[in-house]
This record gives sequence, structure tokens and C-alpha cells, in this order.
Amino acid sequence: MKTLTPAPPLDVSEWLNSQHGISLASLRGRAVMICAFQLLCPACVELGLPQAKRVRTLFAEQDLVVLGLHTLFEHHGAVTKATLEAFLHENRIRFPVGIDRNDGTSAIPKTMQTYNLQGTPTTLLINKQGLITRQHLGHIPDLQLGAEIMALIAE
Amino acid sequence: MKTLTPAPPLDVSEWLNSQHGISLASLRGRAVMICAFQLLCPACVELGLPQAKRVRTLFAEQDLVVLGLHTLFEHHGAVTKATLEAFLHENRIRFPVGIDRNDGTSAIPKTMQTYNLQGTPTTLLINKQGLITRQHLGHIPDLQLGAEIMALIAE
Amino acid sequence: MKTLTPAPPLDVSEWLNSQHGISLASLRGRAVMICAFQLLCPACVELGLPQAKRVRTLFAEQDLVVLGLHTLFEHHGAVTKATLEAFLHENRIRFPVGIDRNDGTSAIPKTMQTYNLQGTPTTLLINKQGLITRQHLGHIPDLQLGAEIMALIAE
Amino acid sequence: MKTLTPAPPLDVSEWLNSQHGISLASLRGRAVMICAFQLLCPACVELGLPQAKRVRTLFAEQDLVVLGLHTLFEHHGAVTKATLEAFLHENRIRFPVGIDRNDGTSAIPKTMQTYNLQGTPTTLLINKQGLITRQHLGHIPDLQLGAEIMALIAE
Repeated sequence: MKTLTPAPPLDVSEWLNSQHGISLASLRGRAVMICAFQLLCPACVELGLPQAKRVRTLFAEQDLVVLGLHTLFEHHGAVTKATLEAFLHENRIRFPVGIDRNDGTSAIPKTMQTYNLQGTPTTLLINKQGLITRQHLGHIPDLQLGAEIMALIAE
Repeated sequence: MKTLTPAPPLDVSEWLNSQHGISLASLRGRAVMICAFQLLCPACVELGLPQAKRVRTLFAEQDLVVLGLHTLFEHHGAVTKATLEAFLHENRIRFPVGIDRNDGTSAIPKTMQTYNLQGTPTTLLINKQGLITRQHLGHIPDLQLGAEIMALIAE
Repeated sequence: MKTLTPAPPLDVSEWLNSQHGISLASLRGRAVMICAFQLLCPACVELGLPQAKRVRTLFAEQDLVVLGLHTLFEHHGAVTKATLEAFLHENRIRFPVGIDRNDGTSAIPKTMQTYNLQGTPTTLLINKQGLITRQHLGHIPDLQLGAEIMALIAE
Repeated sequence: MKTLTPAPPLDVSEWLNSQHGISLASLRGRAVMICAFQLLCPACVELGLPQAKRVRTLFAEQDLVVLGLHTLFEHHGAVTKATLEAFLHENRIRFPVGIDRNDGTSAIPKTMQTYNLQGTPTTLLINKQGLITRQHLGHIPDLQLGAEIMALIAE
């Protein structure tokens, strides 16, 4: 039997689409899905983010929290907070999106390092106890993702 | 709170892709999905049956039973058992498919009458206690269907 | 430079969606597209026939004739003229469809033999002079097919 | 009969994916397709640009010139030349893309004004004589676009 790992804190420099900061610790008792993306990543735009929007629409907020995490690890000079804000507006992404912190010491931002994310899009699922049940680079088919999320909600 | 209805017995004249007859009563303890279809129904071919195949692939047989039900209610002269067998072969449908019984007294076959199915494709979900949790004419998005099935499995 | 082959006559036992028989010879001066299909062929139903319907909608009848050809070479006992009629009705295929003649001497019907068709779906394009410019088993992307048809119309 | 309008010069501040500037006048004798887009426009990313890439792949360069035109008319502060360069790289857009000139007097860049473009994506087709045969806001189905381009090539 696999031992699940606790989800480390998100190290986010700023939250968009949210009035206040968001900590995973404060979300215990609810399932959490995080879509780690970059706005210039084609598979994120085509698959990952539309799926996250569908997930947000289908499940109730009290059952499932959906978060975006902008893990910019390439094209740093090409993308600013203003770019991300405009992107979220144009793509009608209304769930909270954290900007993964970059303190200038590495191309890889902090949360991406902590979670050892291998690229974008990555889908993270965290259960009500705050344990990571899924960390997947690439696409998870809708049927499977719906089932995995419901398994967390039903626990 | 909604009271769930027990799933009536399937009145099937013959089962394809199965060595023996199948009764819902014998499936207690497992979730059941039934895809009611007609082989000349475009939405069944495009949406319903491919989805049922994805469901069969994703979930384990001990958790979920997937059945097809050929509820022929139009074009009776155009479709025979041989047509259905060739159709299942060409579309690589390997799960059991029951031929909804027609005793010649009505265009509507027996199970379709009992369940009051309004057309095809219809998706039926039955929980481990044999109660109908879902009867939907048309398409259920994959994300939602995956979640509904997992809710039944997790019960 | 490739020498084009004259399109042999279609050997059709019956035309559906047409008040009268159709001969290629009578269509000189117009481009012709033929979609050779079987109603139980999944790729025909998913790709070939929907594309033929789009082609029929886009181009004017005086510029382009669109024909279906039901080249039944397998599951003979499973498909009758009534099956085909119901299929055309359900799939809203309104262009003429010929039933490729089978005189009982071979599983392969006559026109399929003459054209040496290798399977279904096959797309045939015939120019205004009655020469075959294209015979393709499988799918031709819409962009390319639109261009090829217009090349014939513009000649 | 409709009188066609000559395509005005493109007023571009810089060309990407090209060693040198490009003038429509220099392209006489070849058909030209221009995809006017913004990199934060979802329909451009989902439909317009992938189609332009398919067009570039299908037709020969000597028959058809494919150009992108980045007509930034909103989110000016969010998108720089570096953003566009990274976007083209990530989306593997290899055909020349002009940055529609903005001299700071209007949100609407110069070529967009001259052509009276109403938004993005807009597809422009220009024939061998330099006349505009098509200016369409939104999506043109592949079948139709393939036919329209071939009509220009065949002239």
C-alpha cells in the first residue's frame, strides 16, 4: 500500500481572483485540485485549463477547491503579472490563481521546486487530510479525473 | 430527499457477448451502468457507446458492471440480431449487450416500457443495492459520469 | 506527369435518394465526388459520411455532384436495403446513394472490383472530363479535400 | 458582380520569423492569406492560428504566402514583443508575423484601422492581383477555406 505524502505549503507571491491569501492548511476538510500551468504553454491552454474550468463548474465549492498555480519556469522576460491578469480575463478563469514565487535565484519557482513538478500542465489532487493523492504531468481524461475527485469527496 | 426506485428486472430475449443470461438481482453489491441504445441512432454511435467503452476500460469489473441494452423501437424491419452482432464486432464493443424483448404487441420493447425510457441513448446507473440513481436521455459529460459512478462505487 | 484514368461506369443495382438511375457519363462537365462506404464501418460513420455531407452543403450542385456508394463487402447477411434506407434516414444523408451490385459470385461487389477499392471509406474524385483525379482509402483532411474539389471546379 | 478592393499596404513595425520586411506589393502573382490575431485571444489560439499552420503545411510557398499579423488592440500593457516571440516559439508558428504598428495615438493599430478589422481572429485572402477576396471575422471551416484558397491559386 502506497503511503501518501502531505502536500507542502504553496509558496505564492500573489493571488489573483482572490481577495486574500490562500493556504492549503486552511482547506483541510475539503478536497483540492491544483492546475499548475504557464500561460504560454499550449497544452495548458488547450487541455489543462479548460478542464479545470469544467471541474470548477461541476463540483460544489464546499466539496472541492480548485486553484491555479502559475509556475513560470521559462520565458520569464515575456510574461508579467499584467500578462497573467489579461490571460485570466480573456479565458474567463475565475478560480483563484497563485503566482508561484520566484526570488531570482533560479529559473524554477519555489512551489515548483518543493513539489518537484516536471513541467506544465500538472494536475495535483489533495485529499481532505491534506495528502497528495495525485501529481500528474500531462492530461488526465475527464472520466478518470471525475472519478478521482469524487473518491476524495466521498472519503 | 429523493427516494430511489428499485431497478426493475431486464426483460431481454438474448444476451450477446455473454455466455449466460444476466440478471440485475445477481449483480447486487456492484454498481451497474446500462447504455440503452439502437445501432442506427447517430448519437448512440457517436457519443453513448464510445463513452460506455471508456467507462468499461477505466473501472474494474468487480466495482462496476457495464451493460448494453439494444432497445429497438424504430426501423424494426431494418435491424436483425445479425446486424447487431456485426455492429458490436465492428465497433469493438465487448461488454454484454441484451436485446430488449419485443413480443410483437408493441413497437416499444419490454424493458424500455418498464423503465419508461424516452429514447436513445439513455444512460442508467444502478447502485449496489439495486436502486436507480440516474436515468438520463442524451449525453452526460465524462467528468460528471466519472464522478457519479465513483460515488456509487465508494458507497 | 501522371496520366489520369477514365472513371469506369458505376455498376449499381439500385439508387436510393434518387428518382432515377445515375450514370457517370451523364455527369460530364461537372466534378464528381463519390464516398464509398459501408454502414457498419465505424470510420465511414465517424469521418467519411459527415465529410460528404459537409461537401454537399458547401458546393453548388451544378459545380459538384456528390454520390454515395454502398460497397458492402462484409457482413452481407447483416445488412439489407432496408437497413441502408433506415441508416440514410437517421443520418440525414440526402444525396444519391447507389448500392454496389453483388451478383452472388463474390463477397466483393462489382464496382468495388472494377475500381479495385481496397476498403471503406474511400473517397473518389472525378474531373469534368470523367477522369479519376483521386482515389483515397481513409480520411482526407477537410482543408485538402476542399482544395482538391475546387481545383476540379476551376478547371 | 462585386468589385474587389485592392489590399492596402501592411503597416508593420517589425517582422518576426523573417529576415527582412515584407510588402504585399512584392507578393503579386501569388495568393496571400493573412491571419490577424492577438496572442491572448482564445479563438485565435484555438482556431485561427492552428488553421493557419495547417494551411501553411498544405499549400506550396510559391502558390500561397501565409502571414500572421499581430493586431494588438487590447491589453497593451500585458503583451510585449518578447511575449509574442515566446508565444510563436511555443506554438511552433514559423510563418512570418508582422507586428501591426501602434504609434501611440490610438488603441487600434494602424493596419487594423486601414483594413477596418472588427476584431480577432480575422482571415484575409488576397488574390494574385493584390485584391481582397475575403475578410472574415471568426472561423471559416477548413473545407471552405481550402476551396477559397485553391480558387485563388487556380486563377
